[in-house]
Amino acid sequence: MRQPVCKNLVPISHCAEHTLNPIRKLVDNLKINPNPDKSFLRLSIGDPSVFGNFNPPPEVISAVSEALTTSCYGYVPAHGLVAAREAIAQYYTTPKSTLTSEDIYIASGCSDALRIAMDCLGDSDRHILLPRPGFSLYQTIAGNRGIPVKFYDLDPNNNWTVNLKQLESLIDGNTAAILVTNPSNPCGSAFSVQHQLEIIAVAEKYGLPIIADEIYQGMVFEGDSRSFGELSDNVPVLSCGGLAKRWLVPGWRVGWLIAHDRHGRLATVRGGLTRLCQVIIGSNVLVQAAIPKILANVPQSFYTATLTKLKKAAEILYSELQDCPQLRPIMPQGAMYMMVEIKVDMLEDIANHMEFVEKLITEQSVFPLPANIFGIPNYVRLVLTVPEDILREACHRILEFCAQHKAKVLRKKSRTDISPMLSS
Amino acid sequence: MRQPVCKNLVPISHCAEHTLNPIRKLVDNLKINPNPDKSFLRLSIGDPSVFGNFNPPPEVISAVSEALTTSCYGYVPAHGLVAAREAIAQYYTTPKSTLTSEDIYIASGCSDALRIAMDCLGDSDRHILLPRPGFSLYQTIAGNRGIPVKFYDLDPNNNWTVNLKQLESLIDGNTAAILVTNPSNPCGSAFSVQHQLEIIAVAEKYGLPIIADEIYQGMVFEGDSRSFGELSDNVPVLSCGGLAKRWLVPGWRVGWLIAHDRHGRLATVRGGLTRLCQVIIGSNVLVQAAIPKILANVPQSFYTATLTKLKKAAEILYSELQDCPQLRPIMPQGAMYMMVEIKVDMLEDIANHMEFVEKLITEQSVFPLPANIFGIPNYVRLVLTVPEDILREACHRILEFCAQHKAKVLRKKSRTDISPMLSS
Repeated sequence: MRQPVCKNLVPISHCAEHTLNPIRKLVDNLKINPNPDKSFLRLSIGDPSVFGNFNPPPEVISAVSEALTTSCYGYVPAHGLVAAREAIAQYYTTPKSTLTSEDIYIASGCSDALRIAMDCLGDSDRHILLPRPGFSLYQTIAGNRGIPVKFYDLDPNNNWTVNLKQLESLIDGNTAAILVTNPSNPCGSAFSVQHQLEIIAVAEKYGLPIIADEIYQGMVFEGDSRSFGELSDNVPVLSCGGLAKRWLVPGWRVGWLIAHDRHGRLATVRGGLTRLCQVIIGSNVLVQAAIPKILANVPQSFYTATLTKLKKAAEILYSELQDCPQLRPIMPQGAMYMMVEIKVDMLEDIANHMEFVEKLITEQSVFPLPANIFGIPNYVRLVLTVPEDILREACHRILEFCAQHKAKVLRKKSRTDISPMLSS
Repeated sequence: MRQPVCKNLVPISHCAEHTLNPIRKLVDNLKINPNPDKSFLRLSIGDPSVFGNFNPPPEVISAVSEALTTSCYGYVPAHGLVAAREAIAQYYTTPKSTLTSEDIYIASGCSDALRIAMDCLGDSDRHILLPRPGFSLYQTIAGNRGIPVKFYDLDPNNNWTVNLKQLESLIDGNTAAILVTNPSNPCGSAFSVQHQLEIIAVAEKYGLPIIADEIYQGMVFEGDSRSFGELSDNVPVLSCGGLAKRWLVPGWRVGWLIAHDRHGRLATVRGGLTRLCQVIIGSNVLVQAAIPKILANVPQSFYTATLTKLKKAAEILYSELQDCPQLRPIMPQGAMYMMVEIKVDMLEDIANHMEFVEKLITEQSVFPLPANIFGIPNYVRLVLTVPEDILREACHRILEFCAQHKAKVLRKKSRTDISPMLSS
């Protein structure tokens, strides 16, 4: 019989213990002491709503406003309102890929859609392959669910394409799925259709499904943005998306999972997805009810204007930073981010990119996100949703910082400072 | 190396396989063929918004409408907007129990709050004690997370009070928490304060925390409605609530978890709760932003009017059904439900309450929910949110049905038809 332990701490589960948020952990451990004489410029937060320069289109607001006056209060099916699922199916249907409402599972944000996808396919003895660098939430979910992961590398010298040989070498009989992110957070890269087909070919060779984080689908500066689901003939794809980024309402927590499955291979998975949606009974119906009007009424000009502003921001950052010997900015093709390599061996008294970020905050009050939370050392991620004047001021200060810290003599320095928490 | 299996089904995880929704399973297996000559009267759905007679107060709508025009688009802390947490803390603070925003965790509906609580305390080798009869979602969550459960009995002949001896007998060194529901879904019962203190005393004796599903708190027809958290001096309580029932917007998916903890025993648990909130990044900010105004501005007259209507519905059901020899309605004290015992030994050609429900649908087009999904045989659950004329018509048909099927001779019949899926 359990003894009274009233004065003791209540213990927590393994699950709660292993649910980690790498961003939180990093930010908690980072010394953030901005220079009090300079305004604090945060280039770290992947939330387009922060600065007031990226607002949702009026059609989004009016659609929800209308839903608010039309009795949208009650429960709907846990995997989503039929009208919303129909609208999403229609919106993402292409000549090559016909979708119906039965292929759509609405979730509480894209994070929840990713959780449901990983939960449904991964298991304590069946791992999921994740991109490195990659969005840190995948590890939070995997830790929460006790799903092992392995990392395949994206090549920073080849526009963040997948190292296909290395990807293939990670696959074994316990591989449950390949997770891809396209366009990429944190890289801001977008795969070519050709490269998407190469990745699909690897999945097909080993009979693996793909989980595609496509929250930034449609957000590429030039050319096509195609879903893995549309491109895949034989590989089942669980594509995760939502209203957060393209429609600029990340706080509204409405996402979806689209099951692309031309050969009925997801029959069992579909049942699992439906049941997994029933645990928290889906997303808020107010925004769900607005989805048909949002998808139908937001004009193309809104999406174009968003992309124009993002591209302009990328161009400003790139042109300002490209000639700095201590930095190597990598021009993005989409999403909301740019990665910049920090050449620490060309900087004096800076051992690694974490120290780069800490000193940049202390001296210049500029805060880029250290990319080791995404699994790669010696890079920082800058966000493109920052207003132009702040971006220019930030670049000015970064350049001043690099000039002040430039190495007199080129040093040889180890670059193996991957954070231990992020090694597989 | 894994072999190509393109033509095979994609397998699902144990988690997806064991995530079960008893209501879904029952409804899928029930023969629902309403009599085409009679309107179909559903007394089964626990959603107050279905019939249009229980609408949220105008203050709820105007508060969200205002949030919609004040840039509530972005991310907020995963465990909730500070202003909303402050408002909830203030709303539930009593002279005996002072709460701050640090005690509040906002979640995507009360279901998500329950998931976070069970996830944080339960483990694959640490079980949670659940009430029987009890709300079926607890088993959905437990199945999803691989948390074992044991059932303690509520006494149908003693106003659904807890069988304390039996509860105590279930506790051992692997017990993680006692989950209580008050007021109760499905019973419509509300514990006396005295009985709440007795339950707390059991938890204290064994050093166990309480998870209190208090989504119906405040919804009792007469007398006090006190939170377990307020009443407990020494036992830490995770109280789960939300906007769904009292404010009549179940589809909006905004719930909360309140950590009542007067002796700092939840220090580790709090960290776990915060991390667990980060997996899906919380609830929609639009409604969160409206919470301070909702809690401040909805007048007492609204809550009173809701309770008056619910009590009236209970009285109608009770007075109509109490004299029927084949039925035993149990008068509820709160929530939105009434349980009715089906005396199957006084009915001819009806073997159990499942057959009672099937034949009642087929002959009379009336659909009460068979209570074996809540773990108890030979009861049905009726909802109180149905308009008066429909309730009266339903009672009329139920009485006609019982008269038509009454046993000529009293039979002896086994009452052990608990659904196998619901036995522990």
